[in-house]
Amino acid sequence: MKINFFAIGGTIDKVYFDALSQYHVGSPAIETILKDARVNFEYEITSLLKKDSLDMTPTDRKSILEAISNDPAQFIVITHGTDTMVETAISLKPIKNKTIVLTGAMEPAKFKSSDAAFNLGSAIAAVQTLPPGVYIAMSGRIFDPEKVSKNREDKQFQDK
Amino acid sequence: MKINFFAIGGTIDKVYFDALSQYHVGSPAIETILKDARVNFEYEITSLLKKDSLDMTPTDRKSILEAISNDPAQFIVITHGTDTMVETAISLKPIKNKTIVLTGAMEPAKFKSSDAAFNLGSAIAAVQTLPPGVYIAMSGRIFDPEKVSKNREDKQFQDK
Amino acid sequence: MKINFFAIGGTIDKVYFDALSQYHVGSPAIETILKDARVNFEYEITSLLKKDSLDMTPTDRKSILEAISNDPAQFIVITHGTDTMVETAISLKPIKNKTIVLTGAMEPAKFKSSDAAFNLGSAIAAVQTLPPGVYIAMSGRIFDPEKVSKNREDKQFQDK
Amino acid sequence: MKINFFAIGGTIDKVYFDALSQYHVGSPAIETILKDARVNFEYEITSLLKKDSLDMTPTDRKSILEAISNDPAQFIVITHGTDTMVETAISLKPIKNKTIVLTGAMEPAKFKSSDAAFNLGSAIAAVQTLPPGVYIAMSGRIFDPEKVSKNREDKQFQDK
Repeated sequence: MKINFFAIGGTIDKVYFDALSQYHVGSPAIETILKDARVNFEYEITSLLKKDSLDMTPTDRKSILEAISNDPAQFIVITHGTDTMVETAISLKPIKNKTIVLTGAMEPAKFKSSDAAFNLGSAIAAVQTLPPGVYIAMSGRIFDPEKVSKNREDKQFQDK
Repeated sequence: MKINFFAIGGTIDKVYFDALSQYHVGSPAIETILKDARVNFEYEITSLLKKDSLDMTPTDRKSILEAISNDPAQFIVITHGTDTMVETAISLKPIKNKTIVLTGAMEPAKFKSSDAAFNLGSAIAAVQTLPPGVYIAMSGRIFDPEKVSKNREDKQFQDK
Repeated sequence: MKINFFAIGGTIDKVYFDALSQYHVGSPAIETILKDARVNFEYEITSLLKKDSLDMTPTDRKSILEAISNDPAQFIVITHGTDTMVETAISLKPIKNKTIVLTGAMEPAKFKSSDAAFNLGSAIAAVQTLPPGVYIAMSGRIFDPEKVSKNREDKQFQDK
Repeated sequence: MKINFFAIGGTIDKVYFDALSQYHVGSPAIETILKDARVNFEYEITSLLKKDSLDMTPTDRKSILEAISNDPAQFIVITHGTDTMVETAISLKPIKNKTIVLTGAMEPAKFKSSDAAFNLGSAIAAVQTLPPGVYIAMSGRIFDPEKVSKNREDKQFQDK
């Protein structure tokens, strides 16, 4: 089994400096999490964008669609900012014959109480058990991107 | 969706005191992990045994089989020591019509670099996407219990 | 021995929400750290301000000076943002007959790799071993506020 | 300022494998903690013993006394198991003209809620502010080794 990972910024990769520099998007958190979990499968990690998902443009989404369409892997996991994860997921629907799972985190992976490792574990299980299609793995659930939205107050993905 | 969790000891729940008292099995780690992940499903957690999995007897396994058979939930996740997880998984095969996923951790959940949250996320995704049966979610893979064994040196579950 | 703690915002208490809400100052980190350390002395924690230290005004500093002058404790530890810690420390110099130590963190206490617990441990040892005066405990050193400055690039307090 | 560190085993350096291998003493935790704290002083770390402090013999203590007596540094910090820290501290009393501070941890440094970084920060502040002598920095206090004992139940060092 081989899984290809694409890191497209978002809270999961946020690091913190200080009040003058604020946070910014750091190296993909995926690598550390996969090492700590000692995963037993092949993988590659590609860092596509280091942006806040709120700043993503239609051009960004087009280049993501292209990059993933051209990727040879059958199993794709994408880490993405939570605010526009649904939008990006829907924009990937034209891709057939691949199982694609998007996930992210409400708290940076570097936090002690982050949901990053849990969510990534969840996305990795989903990508290998589900038929081709595009899914969102957040809040312990596997969602159809058309039927989910982020509830900012509850910090939870919920049925729409 | 409702998932019932059973904590059956193991490294995932280990806490540490000191050289005189050594480690012992503490409260289920499941609760903290589910709260940090802000999961969006109903659940119950039952602490069945607080033993090292190496000390489990056939009587222990019989009472686990009974408890889970009698549980009304369709989706069951079990946290278990890694050394005899495969054995317990196989002993649960008589249960039909439920999806049962066993998981655990190589490092206590209280460690900064623990695989516990990753593995639990993985088990929770698997339990809701797979048909009835008994599975093991470890090392980022979903295994048939008959076809997997723990490699102690690599700290990894591998194809047998 | 009794130590009175004053939390005056800063990175040490930063929590993270998401791209729309950014970081903000949460509850004092001091409490969790003192509990984890199971400290053997009496203490009180007062949250004076929840501001970024860059936004502190002369009026803020005047009210801090007043609050601490009026506090009955002999030993005072202040957690403060690192960018203007030196300035606040110097503004407290008029207080005689108390040992006052300022500390803070380069990374929020909630981060796995935060320097918060280390720095607080350092400030607490300093406050009980030093004669009356105002000190800064950062980067593993105890500084005279007149002779130290923050090097933003090295994320370190250094001799001026 | 230069501080020489000696790691003499104990809980602070415990790592965990699994039920068959139990906990054992790993690499000194000091290094990671000093890096996370970005300390601004010179240092060397020597790993003297990787033993549980309960297993230390009079011969072990004699060789520790020798190693530290012969060390050129003025400031010495020792990480040590908590169960016999007091005993080792007293055995170092013949050393004059050095400030020596012993510390350790109730929970391994690798735990999220460990007291290791706090205690080490505390020892480092004490070693640079106190006159020559042997001290114990635990539970947020600086103790004379003759006047302190470990309370196992409270997991705290307390006045004797």
